[in-house]
Amino acid sequence: MTAAGAHVDVTISEVGLRDGLQSLASIMPTDAKKTWIDMQAKAGVPELEVGSFVPKKLLPQLADTSDLVAHARCHEKLSVAVIVPNLRGAEAAIDAGVTRMTLPFSVSESHSLANLRRSHEQVLGEVKEIAARLTNLPETDRPAFEVGLSTAFGCTIEGRVSEDDVVRIAEQVVALGVDEVGLSDTSGYADPAAVKRLAQKVWSAVGRDRMHGIHLHNTRGQGLANALAALDVGLDTIDSSLGGIGGCPFAPGASGNIVTEDLVFMLEAMGVRTGIDLDALLEVRTFVQDALPSEQLYGFVCEAGLPKGFRDARE
Amino acid sequence: MTAAGAHVDVTISEVGLRDGLQSLASIMPTDAKKTWIDMQAKAGVPELEVGSFVPKKLLPQLADTSDLVAHARCHEKLSVAVIVPNLRGAEAAIDAGVTRMTLPFSVSESHSLANLRRSHEQVLGEVKEIAARLTNLPETDRPAFEVGLSTAFGCTIEGRVSEDDVVRIAEQVVALGVDEVGLSDTSGYADPAAVKRLAQKVWSAVGRDRMHGIHLHNTRGQGLANALAALDVGLDTIDSSLGGIGGCPFAPGASGNIVTEDLVFMLEAMGVRTGIDLDALLEVRTFVQDALPSEQLYGFVCEAGLPKGFRDARE
Repeated sequence: MTAAGAHVDVTISEVGLRDGLQSLASIMPTDAKKTWIDMQAKAGVPELEVGSFVPKKLLPQLADTSDLVAHARCHEKLSVAVIVPNLRGAEAAIDAGVTRMTLPFSVSESHSLANLRRSHEQVLGEVKEIAARLTNLPETDRPAFEVGLSTAFGCTIEGRVSEDDVVRIAEQVVALGVDEVGLSDTSGYADPAAVKRLAQKVWSAVGRDRMHGIHLHNTRGQGLANALAALDVGLDTIDSSLGGIGGCPFAPGASGNIVTEDLVFMLEAMGVRTGIDLDALLEVRTFVQDALPSEQLYGFVCEAGLPKGFRDARE
Repeated sequence: MTAAGAHVDVTISEVGLRDGLQSLASIMPTDAKKTWIDMQAKAGVPELEVGSFVPKKLLPQLADTSDLVAHARCHEKLSVAVIVPNLRGAEAAIDAGVTRMTLPFSVSESHSLANLRRSHEQVLGEVKEIAARLTNLPETDRPAFEVGLSTAFGCTIEGRVSEDDVVRIAEQVVALGVDEVGLSDTSGYADPAAVKRLAQKVWSAVGRDRMHGIHLHNTRGQGLANALAALDVGLDTIDSSLGGIGGCPFAPGASGNIVTEDLVFMLEAMGVRTGIDLDALLEVRTFVQDALPSEQLYGFVCEAGLPKGFRDARE
């Protein structure tokens, strides 16, 4: 297995601490989260989304995000990411010292109104203000600013979402100064052909350097197949969640992130380097399950174990 | 949705009645199996593996295979497939009037001894005798004869299985007169890169016409990703099981066929025609669950439902 920090072909962005925990009734104690972060870093996970700068009243599960960012930043090679819904959240993220911040932008305006309680115009306003704020920062203090194109593959409220709308919003936010956009299958509507088609369309509009990542859900069991399509088309950052916890609490019927352990197994088995030690990752899973005894974790590799001879073939 | 018998891009071979039922403690009554067959045919499934010609003592769940073949053959456009372990089984299959029969050949000889209690030499002997028997039949009575290359991606006993061994056995059985070979991931060891690599290698050795199909397990959650890889490389027949029931009862730790409903959803969402009506398929699932009340069925699409607007986009 590759040591942490070595060259990787695909960056796994672990979202369990944010997308996972925000959907659970349980609130994990900050100390447990810090141990989780340390274990992930030790297992070689290159990026962790540790929380979200939203009002504590809205998501008390993530109230300790600032503290976690500071803790995670001690791991020198770790990219520390958060979600920010607006300028106020971005200010907090900058103050905390994040590596990367992502603003979710629902391409379906109905979903945007239901989820962020904001119209497209209002969200574009926030994006513009954040981009302007970042311009005034010295480069060394400036986190990467990404817009996540939520409901890019469809929406439980509107159904079909036009690919032209996805492209248009990507163009608009890039014009406003965001560093990157990412595709997000908020409702589990994506299929492998759509993943490839939409990635190509967005790249054609905003340039290949402006999009690296995809966030997939396993709602209809298509998570790993969609991740494979993403890899094939050339996306090189894939979000996933330890034990598959989480999903989008605001999209009815949409649940279940792709399981990090199963994704890393797929990639490593294919010879695609993730920098992650699978045995260490399975230990993190055990820790998280112990810390969340009443929560259901998902995944197959944890049950079946690694194939006989899998480790030898990689040494 | 495409009507039964219309042109399809990928042939789904439903193995629930054989690979599924043989692994369950419950014995499904013959009448229920016949209803299952009728519903599958009505849903547009082009091929059904209805049973196995093995001694009744060994698999009492499949003791009515002859009866089921006769019943299934009433559906004119349906390909009716069975498993045969040896010449005696093949004779029974020919007498019953099957469209296709598959002899499983474990590339791992240890697995062959544990599973079929036969060495490679002995299995090759059976293949030779069956091929000779078929040569003497009038063409109209002659079923297609396939050898399934079990443990092609690895084995729970031997671990790694050499790809050269897979190719060598494919060459040997084709030289003996089998119509086709198929790749079988008996132990759930396959990954998308291995699927593509091995298909290419076997094709190079025996010709593209000699291999169309793959049998995948979802042991490590990789089933649909591997199916996508199979599709990408050009395999056009994929085995799957309604509700994901079954697997290989002789390979410890290996369980779980890929779920037909989720596979068909993936393909149809991508615009790949299967000829299968997903709504009708979900009705078959309900019937099978009712007929097997104590058994666990798997799958995601059945829980999440079809995406909003999915049907409209296909009409």
